[in-house]
Amino acid sequence: MGEQQAEEKPRRRGRPRKASSVSGLGTEEDILVSAAKQFSEVGFGSTSTYAIAQGAGISQATMYHHFGGKHAILLALLLRTVEPSVAYADGLAGAEGTAAARLWALCAYDARLLASGETNLGSLYLLPELGDERFASFHAQRDRLAGVYAGLVAALVAEQGVAEGAGELADLVFGLVESVILRRRDAGVAPGREVTDRIADAALRVVGLDADAVAAAREAGAALVP
Amino acid sequence: MGEQQAEEKPRRRGRPRKASSVSGLGTEEDILVSAAKQFSEVGFGSTSTYAIAQGAGISQATMYHHFGGKHAILLALLLRTVEPSVAYADGLAGAEGTAAARLWALCAYDARLLASGETNLGSLYLLPELGDERFASFHAQRDRLAGVYAGLVAALVAEQGVAEGAGELADLVFGLVESVILRRRDAGVAPGREVTDRIADAALRVVGLDADAVAAAREAGAALVP
Repeated sequence: MGEQQAEEKPRRRGRPRKASSVSGLGTEEDILVSAAKQFSEVGFGSTSTYAIAQGAGISQATMYHHFGGKHAILLALLLRTVEPSVAYADGLAGAEGTAAARLWALCAYDARLLASGETNLGSLYLLPELGDERFASFHAQRDRLAGVYAGLVAALVAEQGVAEGAGELADLVFGLVESVILRRRDAGVAPGREVTDRIADAALRVVGLDADAVAAAREAGAALVP
Repeated sequence: MGEQQAEEKPRRRGRPRKASSVSGLGTEEDILVSAAKQFSEVGFGSTSTYAIAQGAGISQATMYHHFGGKHAILLALLLRTVEPSVAYADGLAGAEGTAAARLWALCAYDARLLASGETNLGSLYLLPELGDERFASFHAQRDRLAGVYAGLVAALVAEQGVAEGAGELADLVFGLVESVILRRRDAGVAPGREVTDRIADAALRVVGLDADAVAAAREAGAALVP
């Protein structure tokens, strides 16, 4: 078996190639890493495509080969803050467990996603430029994610017999999860799992669950988060 | 008495003066209104002092007579999002009522403040420029406000015998109140009082109060909000 593994290794011949990626993950990733860093350090408006290309160790021409421009790069970065949560939420729909456990899991997953990565991409949510139609697909994905929250909160409200409107509660939960963005900004470091898990606990209290119900949802929900 | 009032009125003589203020509240206010509009529409980085002056109906020289530059204007705008809440919170310290009622009142007041005004000034909180030391007084005021939240949450936790750490709960409450900023941005309109009051309700649920305790705090707290 050891020999077979060795055979499967790609054989390298000739001179080692010049390192072609700053991040080691390819040019596209290099561009995204460079842009994210500069957008959050000097702002979207003050970042030039020249500076993005330079940070990625490539020419502007190469950059334009991968992305149509600054807006396309920002869109790609924004989508990374929602698409994984949307995909996870879709998977949760078929998962076993109570609505409370699934809502806990979604809040925890989403808060961890927003707390992850080198840069605080969620801090781009308040950019005035986001009203531009070029970001329509980001807004559509975020709306879709909000829709999954609303569905889970509605199911939980029905389970628990809570009096308050589910739509309003879902907006509060969504806002509480995204509050991790400003918190990360204030702290200057990414909040750890103890913080993001407490956000998920608090989200269930917002919906009206008592301490015992939150503890049960957390235990069952934590098992659903990868 | 009618005559006396008439005597106190300033007498206007000669030609009426040229209207000297766009907002009718003076040049400084005109500058702030113009800047707020442009910062939130095109971004801080992309707004020129020329455009701010033009929007205020004055020359750049006149603008520089009132403010040292773009950063000074941004600082003045940022302080408006926290100073009223700090002043209100200081007054609350001496007010009668339970910690729950006072916390409800502070959350409601603060959320209403962030939802008020022509422009969503809170959307400036995530600007990369805010790391600059020129904004130290804004951060100091916001920290002071967070400190009042922490004190009220600690008093409430002691009152209620909640197990979770007060510091962590205060951060969650603060984040929930400020979530009105992103919500206002998403909605495109300022959230009404029904929304900001529900945020205050939810803040008390985050701290661990049950529905009856929240209702009581809301009734007593609402009487404390001007």
